[in-house]
Amino acid sequence: MEKIEHIGIAVKDLEKSNALFASFFGESHYKTEEVASEGVKTSFFKSGPNKIELLQATNPESPIAKFIEKKGEGIHHIAFLVQDIHAEIVRLKNEGFSVLNDPEISGTKKGADNKLVVFLHPKTTNGVLIELCQEIQ
Amino acid sequence: MEKIEHIGIAVKDLEKSNALFASFFGESHYKTEEVASEGVKTSFFKSGPNKIELLQATNPESPIAKFIEKKGEGIHHIAFLVQDIHAEIVRLKNEGFSVLNDPEISGTKKGADNKLVVFLHPKTTNGVLIELCQEIQ
Repeated sequence: MEKIEHIGIAVKDLEKSNALFASFFGESHYKTEEVASEGVKTSFFKSGPNKIELLQATNPESPIAKFIEKKGEGIHHIAFLVQDIHAEIVRLKNEGFSVLNDPEISGTKKGADNKLVVFLHPKTTNGVLIELCQEIQ
Repeated sequence: MEKIEHIGIAVKDLEKSNALFASFFGESHYKTEEVASEGVKTSFFKSGPNKIELLQATNPESPIAKFIEKKGEGIHHIAFLVQDIHAEIVRLKNEGFSVLNDPEISGTKKGADNKLVVFLHPKTTNGVLIELCQEIQ
């Protein structure tokens, strides 16, 4: 794991939360992006080598809509940057971790911010939803 | 905010979770520390410029015990590194954020890892418990 690439935060109203986190960071978000396949609109803030990704659901079936329904707004996942996502997933599966979207079965998913992404099942990671992400070259 | 200094993860059994995250990172935690005033035992892992702090309650009144009782194990807080915690808190209060331990009233608290720490109230930060921390020189 190279670093924490970003923290994903589930929000109800992206526009309101963009203003809130702009006040917090003293600086506005630097981009927004919609990931239609995941049913989310996202926006990104920088904090040195790390990012904060705000996530708003675009439909009621979106994982973010379901998360907010169950737990309310708040931290949704941690994403770690890796150089070789396929090798890392093989290693982690050998260590006993479960993968939500297994790239050996269904291929990697393209997430926001030009990344290949794989999520680990929180049941095997102390309740923490962990994303691994690799920059698409 | 210089960077994400660490992510705090609430766990029930530090020893078990140390083994779990050692498998995840492919590397063991590099230190443990007890913060008696907060009722926690902690351990730290490195991920490039960032850290993961595991937190186990040492008594039932600990904020971590209460967190796990309500929400289960999982991500507890994000900590951002700042250079001047007093100036940041003044700025954030002016922006409308609420502070859980106000350094202007009760002084800053000494947290784990040789840091002055202040927490913002999650009600003003989209449900996210945010810690600001400054290295003690």
